[in-house]
Amino acid sequence: MKKQFINESFPHMLHGGDYNPDQWLDRPDILAEDMRLMKLAGCNAMTVGIFAWAALEPEEGKFDFSFLDQTINDVYQNGGRIVLSTPSAARPAWLSMKYPEILRTGEDGIRISHGRRANHCYTSPIYREKVATVNRLLAERYAHHPAVIAWHISNEYNGKCYCELCKEAFRLWLRKKYGTLDALNHQWWTSFWAHTYTDWSQIDPPMPHGETSSNGLTLDWKRFVTHQTTDFMKAEIAPLRAANPAIPVTTNMMGTYDGLDYRVLAKELDVISWDSYPKWEDNETDIQKASDTALVHDLNRCFLHKPFMLMESTPSVANWHEYSKLKRPGVHMLSSLQAVAHGSDTVQYFQWRKGRNGIEKYHGAVVDHVGHEHTRVFRDVASVGARLAKLDGIVGTGTVSRVAVIHEWANRWALEAANGFQLRDKKYGKTRNAYYHALWKRGINTDVIGYEDVFSKYDLIIAPMLYLVSDELIAKMEAYVKEGGTILCTYTTGMVNENDLAYLGGFPGGKLQEVFGIWNEAIDSLFPTDVNGVSYRGRTYQAVDYCEIIHARGAEVRGTYTSDFYAGGAAFTVNNYGKGKAYYQAFRDTGDFCDDLIGEILQSLGIRSDFDGPLPYGVTAHSRTDGESVFVFLENYSKTEKKTRTAQQWQTVEDGTPITGEITLAPHETLILQRPC
Amino acid sequence: MKKQFINESFPHMLHGGDYNPDQWLDRPDILAEDMRLMKLAGCNAMTVGIFAWAALEPEEGKFDFSFLDQTINDVYQNGGRIVLSTPSAARPAWLSMKYPEILRTGEDGIRISHGRRANHCYTSPIYREKVATVNRLLAERYAHHPAVIAWHISNEYNGKCYCELCKEAFRLWLRKKYGTLDALNHQWWTSFWAHTYTDWSQIDPPMPHGETSSNGLTLDWKRFVTHQTTDFMKAEIAPLRAANPAIPVTTNMMGTYDGLDYRVLAKELDVISWDSYPKWEDNETDIQKASDTALVHDLNRCFLHKPFMLMESTPSVANWHEYSKLKRPGVHMLSSLQAVAHGSDTVQYFQWRKGRNGIEKYHGAVVDHVGHEHTRVFRDVASVGARLAKLDGIVGTGTVSRVAVIHEWANRWALEAANGFQLRDKKYGKTRNAYYHALWKRGINTDVIGYEDVFSKYDLIIAPMLYLVSDELIAKMEAYVKEGGTILCTYTTGMVNENDLAYLGGFPGGKLQEVFGIWNEAIDSLFPTDVNGVSYRGRTYQAVDYCEIIHARGAEVRGTYTSDFYAGGAAFTVNNYGKGKAYYQAFRDTGDFCDDLIGEILQSLGIRSDFDGPLPYGVTAHSRTDGESVFVFLENYSKTEKKTRTAQQWQTVEDGTPITGEITLAPHETLILQRPC
Amino acid sequence: MKKQFINESFPHMLHGGDYNPDQWLDRPDILAEDMRLMKLAGCNAMTVGIFAWAALEPEEGKFDFSFLDQTINDVYQNGGRIVLSTPSAARPAWLSMKYPEILRTGEDGIRISHGRRANHCYTSPIYREKVATVNRLLAERYAHHPAVIAWHISNEYNGKCYCELCKEAFRLWLRKKYGTLDALNHQWWTSFWAHTYTDWSQIDPPMPHGETSSNGLTLDWKRFVTHQTTDFMKAEIAPLRAANPAIPVTTNMMGTYDGLDYRVLAKELDVISWDSYPKWEDNETDIQKASDTALVHDLNRCFLHKPFMLMESTPSVANWHEYSKLKRPGVHMLSSLQAVAHGSDTVQYFQWRKGRNGIEKYHGAVVDHVGHEHTRVFRDVASVGARLAKLDGIVGTGTVSRVAVIHEWANRWALEAANGFQLRDKKYGKTRNAYYHALWKRGINTDVIGYEDVFSKYDLIIAPMLYLVSDELIAKMEAYVKEGGTILCTYTTGMVNENDLAYLGGFPGGKLQEVFGIWNEAIDSLFPTDVNGVSYRGRTYQAVDYCEIIHARGAEVRGTYTSDFYAGGAAFTVNNYGKGKAYYQAFRDTGDFCDDLIGEILQSLGIRSDFDGPLPYGVTAHSRTDGESVFVFLENYSKTEKKTRTAQQWQTVEDGTPITGEITLAPHETLILQRPC
Repeated sequence: MKKQFINESFPHMLHGGDYNPDQWLDRPDILAEDMRLMKLAGCNAMTVGIFAWAALEPEEGKFDFSFLDQTINDVYQNGGRIVLSTPSAARPAWLSMKYPEILRTGEDGIRISHGRRANHCYTSPIYREKVATVNRLLAERYAHHPAVIAWHISNEYNGKCYCELCKEAFRLWLRKKYGTLDALNHQWWTSFWAHTYTDWSQIDPPMPHGETSSNGLTLDWKRFVTHQTTDFMKAEIAPLRAANPAIPVTTNMMGTYDGLDYRVLAKELDVISWDSYPKWEDNETDIQKASDTALVHDLNRCFLHKPFMLMESTPSVANWHEYSKLKRPGVHMLSSLQAVAHGSDTVQYFQWRKGRNGIEKYHGAVVDHVGHEHTRVFRDVASVGARLAKLDGIVGTGTVSRVAVIHEWANRWALEAANGFQLRDKKYGKTRNAYYHALWKRGINTDVIGYEDVFSKYDLIIAPMLYLVSDELIAKMEAYVKEGGTILCTYTTGMVNENDLAYLGGFPGGKLQEVFGIWNEAIDSLFPTDVNGVSYRGRTYQAVDYCEIIHARGAEVRGTYTSDFYAGGAAFTVNNYGKGKAYYQAFRDTGDFCDDLIGEILQSLGIRSDFDGPLPYGVTAHSRTDGESVFVFLENYSKTEKKTRTAQQWQTVEDGTPITGEITLAPHETLILQRPC
Repeated sequence: MKKQFINESFPHMLHGGDYNPDQWLDRPDILAEDMRLMKLAGCNAMTVGIFAWAALEPEEGKFDFSFLDQTINDVYQNGGRIVLSTPSAARPAWLSMKYPEILRTGEDGIRISHGRRANHCYTSPIYREKVATVNRLLAERYAHHPAVIAWHISNEYNGKCYCELCKEAFRLWLRKKYGTLDALNHQWWTSFWAHTYTDWSQIDPPMPHGETSSNGLTLDWKRFVTHQTTDFMKAEIAPLRAANPAIPVTTNMMGTYDGLDYRVLAKELDVISWDSYPKWEDNETDIQKASDTALVHDLNRCFLHKPFMLMESTPSVANWHEYSKLKRPGVHMLSSLQAVAHGSDTVQYFQWRKGRNGIEKYHGAVVDHVGHEHTRVFRDVASVGARLAKLDGIVGTGTVSRVAVIHEWANRWALEAANGFQLRDKKYGKTRNAYYHALWKRGINTDVIGYEDVFSKYDLIIAPMLYLVSDELIAKMEAYVKEGGTILCTYTTGMVNENDLAYLGGFPGGKLQEVFGIWNEAIDSLFPTDVNGVSYRGRTYQAVDYCEIIHARGAEVRGTYTSDFYAGGAAFTVNNYGKGKAYYQAFRDTGDFCDDLIGEILQSLGIRSDFDGPLPYGVTAHSRTDGESVFVFLENYSKTEKKTRTAQQWQTVEDGTPITGEITLAPHETLILQRPC
Repeated sequence: MKKQFINESFPHMLHGGDYNPDQWLDRPDILAEDMRLMKLAGCNAMTVGIFAWAALEPEEGKFDFSFLDQTINDVYQNGGRIVLSTPSAARPAWLSMKYPEILRTGEDGIRISHGRRANHCYTSPIYREKVATVNRLLAERYAHHPAVIAWHISNEYNGKCYCELCKEAFRLWLRKKYGTLDALNHQWWTSFWAHTYTDWSQIDPPMPHGETSSNGLTLDWKRFVTHQTTDFMKAEIAPLRAANPAIPVTTNMMGTYDGLDYRVLAKELDVISWDSYPKWEDNETDIQKASDTALVHDLNRCFLHKPFMLMESTPSVANWHEYSKLKRPGVHMLSSLQAVAHGSDTVQYFQWRKGRNGIEKYHGAVVDHVGHEHTRVFRDVASVGARLAKLDGIVGTGTVSRVAVIHEWANRWALEAANGFQLRDKKYGKTRNAYYHALWKRGINTDVIGYEDVFSKYDLIIAPMLYLVSDELIAKMEAYVKEGGTILCTYTTGMVNENDLAYLGGFPGGKLQEVFGIWNEAIDSLFPTDVNGVSYRGRTYQAVDYCEIIHARGAEVRGTYTSDFYAGGAAFTVNNYGKGKAYYQAFRDTGDFCDDLIGEILQSLGIRSDFDGPLPYGVTAHSRTDGESVFVFLENYSKTEKKTRTAQQWQTVEDGTPITGEITLAPHETLILQRPC
């Protein structure tokens, strides 16, 4: 099993963060102090240049790279490496003043004024040209500098623009997708409300003052926004790869951010990175939060199925959280190592040193306004640095998962926009996370995948609320089960095709009725105060929110409703199809049913954690491997000491201490163990 | 008592709904299936063409009526009839593109983009011309087709436009109403805040960015919106009546929708129709909801005081409800027959067959995406169809009410806009419904009337929160009581004239102080946590929200406050005036006082239900009559079996089974009984 | 101690209110009745002309002062005086139509339409010219009329404008403040997100569609709005002073309204006035509300450190309150005399007579729509009038306070805009009021001061959440303590300079670490459900919202945290510095700690109430003095009778009754006592 490095030239865990010396150019004393403190903190990788356009090009066409020259050299001479950013996320004021077309137009049709960041038009030829120039100059100057180990493209791409250029690009994209207006009219079902288009120019994006009633349009607009953002990003990347294709390219993503289908962007990148800011509360909710965060780490790892970068995190508070609560002792270490456990080869921060004004001046940083190292936060960071330095053996290792959970952007977009069911909140994310949690608490490595991923390598695929399914996906699911796969789906499965066009002939659409052996006649959306029950294996579970009235058409009925007019009707079924099995859960449970069910399915498939001991609630174990050794991260997310035991022979990764028998984990402790595979 | 039919040529209960074959023109198999299913469902009236403009006129001036020709003929050949719609509610895209003036301008001054529906300018000459043309062609082609039994004008008129054309029309309307600026300045009291107008052109509608502080302006703008919408509707109707005045004209209204004074529109129509979507919850709130819905049926019946049409309802869920909860068994039948009990001669649905995309694709329809008749919803619809088919004897019959409740749009508009009392929620509708509920639960037929209705035919008029009263209305009320009528009014009565100008000389204004024999010094608006008490006939009732400090000036004080600084003061009075009585309730109760009071007043006036048996809570009875027979609908809105008994000799309408003595009603059962008057 | 009169020519308590005869010009009977009723109500000062521009200048350049001539003469002949208003707050419609530039532009960039009031551009030269003209004519005509005792400038200045004229004025103001862009860029820390300005024209105000991320810009924009409003006001005042500088000038303020730094306006005024509308609820919250209102009276008194005017209050309800609850018996007297107790020499109302339409027609007035004097409200007003007439001896007297609480607009602006801590609600006002309440309940006269006030005259200064401190302020605080002053500060003290630029080197900034003898390492912002404890003098107090982790650097640690990872750490410290003491409270308490603490500090400093008896909760005492006598207002805000006693010899101010020993206060009673100093 080949290791996959971010950059082979530097096969170590990266530790560091966003570094903005351009804010301190009048303070050489502070810049010098930064170098001393970086070494103290065990930082070896600094991300520079993110919002430096005003410094690099103070007036149009006049460039000044002196501060970058010095910073890159200083860091390098102190043993560090550079993640070098392109500056497109925030433009200089002179650029907005001279070329207003680059300013985004809002959904209200109003062009914004200069300010904030990440709000340029992705279509504007002028903006693309200006970005290409500065990127080219950066690449020519630094792409062969030995300090530079990765490109960081822009920053947290997001948002959309409704200017005429974007509208026209949207129409062209639609034309390319559908070919004819007849095809588009059919898929969007525009005969509803006389919305039939007779000319491409009649199509505008969905806008509050305009069209809001076409689900097909809404869905395609979201796809187009991803397309156009990716197209812009590709234009950003081109001059960098031209200068030196060996430097890997990434952009920092934002978890399950709804505005972009990250899988489309991911295809253009060499390495994935993301910004993680879980809201630790220091109470019982933190265990679910740990699992929710783990899911996103898995999602990011699976974009390219290899180690990723934790590009941003906070060593203390995220100032934009509702409550800037300090991280409790151990939490920073735990949170950092969780990323590594799930496949990150970096722990990086926003940011190195707090700025003095502006809306992020209280965002947690390694170096506080006080300026010295004698703070709890600095000591926490230094501890992480010291520990990461001992994990060279894990760098580049992979993750083996027999289970996958599906998260597909288009599915969520269509589901959440659906006018029906529970209108305002479908609870898609919460539902997906509940299934994932049942895996996580059992220490099961899990991949989080999309429709285009390979299905056949998994023994179990869990696909909650798989509302949108294309004919291709139906065929893929059918083949997967037929060939021996096990799949678990739920209420709202298979209702619309890839353009949100409802299937005729019964739900789930097409051949899925055969695969699951059921027909879903109707979905009963309950009031929040309503509860039904489902009888399963002698126990009654609560059913809430959704109860589908399904009819077995070959499936075995294993769970039945206990009340209301469909009492006794099927609520949970399993169907043997080909060599596999298809489970259908027709109701939403409150967490206990899906937990028990997944436990049962895992057992039936012989899927186990790489750690053999019991996992008390709050403790979990996830592993990485190089094919020779397995590295297990034993993590305690609870506030109390926890015990487990192992019959296997382990040793700690950092210092080789042998571990077997009973193991005690302090509150928030993480233990990193290894043994041969 | 003459029967009044929707269309004498088809003296049957209409059953059917919105039918959009234009969405399925590429599927002749489905269109054929529709005909088979309609007969299975007992549907005899299909509403077609509502949003068909894009199909009828795919490009400007090029018309294609082929699908309508076929649909109308198909339905007719299968024994059905057609409610034919004008298509103005949704315009083709080419129309918006070519004539942007037809697009509505919002209250923010921004002209909308093309999209959605029901958002054209009602003033635009171009839109009126385009509508007139297509309506004329429809009329010329179909007004004498034997299938066509009614015209359905546009769809759910609503909204308003702030374009320059509308502003100018508003100014002209004001000029016509007031004659001089002096008169307007006086009624609007523009000397407040230096708002005196010195030129008509200075007057704009109320707008967030403009004038928001003139109650008189706000009230007149609402009146103007009704006027202009009605004017547009009249222009729509003209070519239809020109072609064949025998076809009755209706437009589908939306209950107590606040945006239009439906009484003004009603004057232009031949028959009333409305769209009813009660949010049945399957819990104890459904009984109040049944009563609230009954009130709206009564309101619609009383616009023209004759049978109306239930133009839209859902056979299962309304997808725009917050929770798409399925109707429980029996509820669809009960809900449908309730409309008939209160005077509807139709049960119609939106819609016949679910579309495949767009925001209404999950709205309950007779035929689901699955496409066949083997669904619970289809069976429910077919049951209703079968039952309606046996009610020919009820078609065209009337309703006799001795009691009326007043609901007047201008009163609600002024009251709810009043800056004072409880500022944000006056609870007008809830209050009106509480009084109605006391009548409904007792099985008392009730008319819901406006200021222009005849008062003298009622023995009792209940007018909650009758805030706005013109001098004419004061005189009418005075004459009504003097001649022997009984009236019940409450807090906030008679404070302003028809232009929201406060009366001088004490409340209630003018001669009402004599009629009620009281002077209302002040209104104490309580906090939600405050409670006072009212002592009445030895019992203490809670007083909440409003406690007026009133002084008897001739009235008998029957109820007094029990606490606070006005303890012992009058809270409920009755005044003998001429041959009648005027009750004044100075406080808001929590439902029990008004319930007891109405029971008492009904008894004193000898007003009884047409059904003689006891009505357990949740069961009610409402009647229709042709002057020879009385038809009683005995309805059980509870989830449990209920018993009652009758000393009268009845027979069931459907099959003539004799009924007397004890009667058992299953949950949600409706029994339709008749006996000679 | 010299008395300071509003106008020496009329050394009486003023009683009266806004009088708008221009609304009743067609009713001479009502105008005559007004004169009769004013005398009945004991009113001696009417405020006229506030919204009279449309009456005074019905068309451009055509003036008509006849109604003012008559009103001023009528009032004067009936023994009253006139507070004469300039009409700028509401402009005639013709002015908006002809000169649209005077209409304000919103933060969305949209120019408003004509309507409402107080929404003109403060920069527009045309508006300034028009206002100057009408003001000049008013001044020329009435500045020497013996009835006119004060000018009332405009009405409740508020709001802001984003038109190009205002933007340009803002840039000029910035240029004047900072001199160079380098200085501005440094203070605003524009290198963050590449926001560096390279030309003054690049700077726009903060706007939702533009810049929202620069705290420095946001803070300066608020300062500029105050500057520009003041500049406009100065232009309004100039022609008035030119005509007769002896007539004092005021404008009616709105308490702690956030939009304007009233201290800047105050510098231009001769006397302060404000509009007070406490929301009395008639429950236990009223006692805190009384204290909150007292704080604002003190704030207004301290702007110029002399008697002020209660320019507006309501004799019954404020119709824009959420609930128009009537004032309970005694409350109007108590609320009116509270103002006098804290330094007001007037009790004035909005308004004299209720108008008939518009959004204020239900605002409580002396004369109701009924038109006569036989109402409870009128009697309440007449009682106040009769009592004020006996308080000539108090007119012009001063207030002596040994304690001050700091309220500075810029501090609140910066603190509440800070992105961090508890993000959405810093609870600044509530916190400030909690400390004040501890003083108020003890009957301690308190000044509410700003950064520019003299500190050295106070024995104790309390400065909650003193987040923003300039170097000058730090020096002033240091000198104050060094010379013997006592100061109490709390969490979030001294974090940023006057431009919101964070201090380096540790918090509190600069020398404050020495003054308080502590270093604040970090602030832990808790969730609303979190509670810590602080052990102090053997008792454990709750700590909520904020717990700073502080380190003693010389201070004595008196209170320590009881739980969480900083248990045992310092939570409350005191530092002897020079001859004074500096207290630092590092946590937010729930009211009891600050209450106990202030009791303790007052005792240690020997600060006592001027009334020697016990003050049961709900009863308080505040005093005024002329240097010879002390006048104590003993006020009972509770709904029950309260007892106290005094060892001193008092007499009642109104009739000289001797008072000593036990004193019984009826619910809501106010007793006014005096004795020699």
